[in-house]
Amino acid sequence: MAPPKLTYFPIKGLAEPIRFIFAYANEEFIDDRIDANNWPTIKPTTPFGKLPVLDIDGKVVTQASPICRYYAKKCGLNGKDDWEDLLIDATVGTFDDMRQAIANYYYDPDEESKRRKYDPLIKDTIPFYMERLEKQVKENGGYFVNGRLTWADLWVVSLLDIVNYYTKLTVEEKHPHIKALRDKVQAIPAIKAWIAKRPKTDW
Amino acid sequence: MAPPKLTYFPIKGLAEPIRFIFAYANEEFIDDRIDANNWPTIKPTTPFGKLPVLDIDGKVVTQASPICRYYAKKCGLNGKDDWEDLLIDATVGTFDDMRQAIANYYYDPDEESKRRKYDPLIKDTIPFYMERLEKQVKENGGYFVNGRLTWADLWVVSLLDIVNYYTKLTVEEKHPHIKALRDKVQAIPAIKAWIAKRPKTDW
Repeated sequence: MAPPKLTYFPIKGLAEPIRFIFAYANEEFIDDRIDANNWPTIKPTTPFGKLPVLDIDGKVVTQASPICRYYAKKCGLNGKDDWEDLLIDATVGTFDDMRQAIANYYYDPDEESKRRKYDPLIKDTIPFYMERLEKQVKENGGYFVNGRLTWADLWVVSLLDIVNYYTKLTVEEKHPHIKALRDKVQAIPAIKAWIAKRPKTDW
Repeated sequence: MAPPKLTYFPIKGLAEPIRFIFAYANEEFIDDRIDANNWPTIKPTTPFGKLPVLDIDGKVVTQASPICRYYAKKCGLNGKDDWEDLLIDATVGTFDDMRQAIANYYYDPDEESKRRKYDPLIKDTIPFYMERLEKQVKENGGYFVNGRLTWADLWVVSLLDIVNYYTKLTVEEKHPHIKALRDKVQAIPAIKAWIAKRPKTDW
């Protein structure tokens, strides 16, 4: 059985949580990074016109968080029961709400409209989410869910780069519990080794 | 144990997939619909400033698709294995990508920018997704995943109202397999009974 092939743009982006979980699970994978110039040609060949896609022995699946959830079950990063899975999934969904608010600003093609979004995003939306996520980590023993490492932690930590790139901030800067969680995840030997060997990209 | 209380705006919206699953599972719930005028007061009391929230015996959880996934497991609307769960989750995520592209148009506060988004959305984005979703239903025996009813079917069918409200279209109109799936889901006795008794709202 060939290793799964993960196709994405040549950045961390939405493929990075999957790469973190593959690293943690010691799961061999093909890190297929397309040339962005070829995207118009590749796009119609994907199931729904989006990356990442994962090819597992010819079966092609899409969507980053479902792929993470699937592999998390194989390496114990899922919840220990349905309730924990719900808390993990809700954390991932909440972080994604913030990430999408940021992307909605970053990709706005109208310069004037984009400019108007900046202040509410930086002053209200991001602090609103980050303060509550910080409180969640503080109240859960340094992790997002019930005091132990789950894929929600890998999801958030691996996506900090992209939200920081979009905003030119370090969104976790004023949040010591999230910073400590970030450092803890990045210090896991398998994750640390992946970070050391992955291609160096800004986001 | 009190029945779970589902709090949302007085519309179908993102609470409707949860209500469909509660109906299907014959799970009693409190259908708490707030007065939208009270939202500024209620918002800071929610975990992350968003609805729906679900209060289960004092434990408050958020995020529509995680809540659906949790209850789907209790009533057999989940996958029969991890692989099917991945296919279900990917379908839900894909439909949400389309829904969010539509919401991104609908909620654009800049009239000019909103106007510019309309044509690409109606002529390209929605047909692109709907044709591929139609093909998926056609190739999977009339359901989204492996020829049997899952919460992916309830998710999509219950959210057609909101995407149709936003776009003033019937997005499933030209897609006979999705229309047939819609009719089939709405004809499930428990869902049919819920649709008959729910408050009548446009979206």
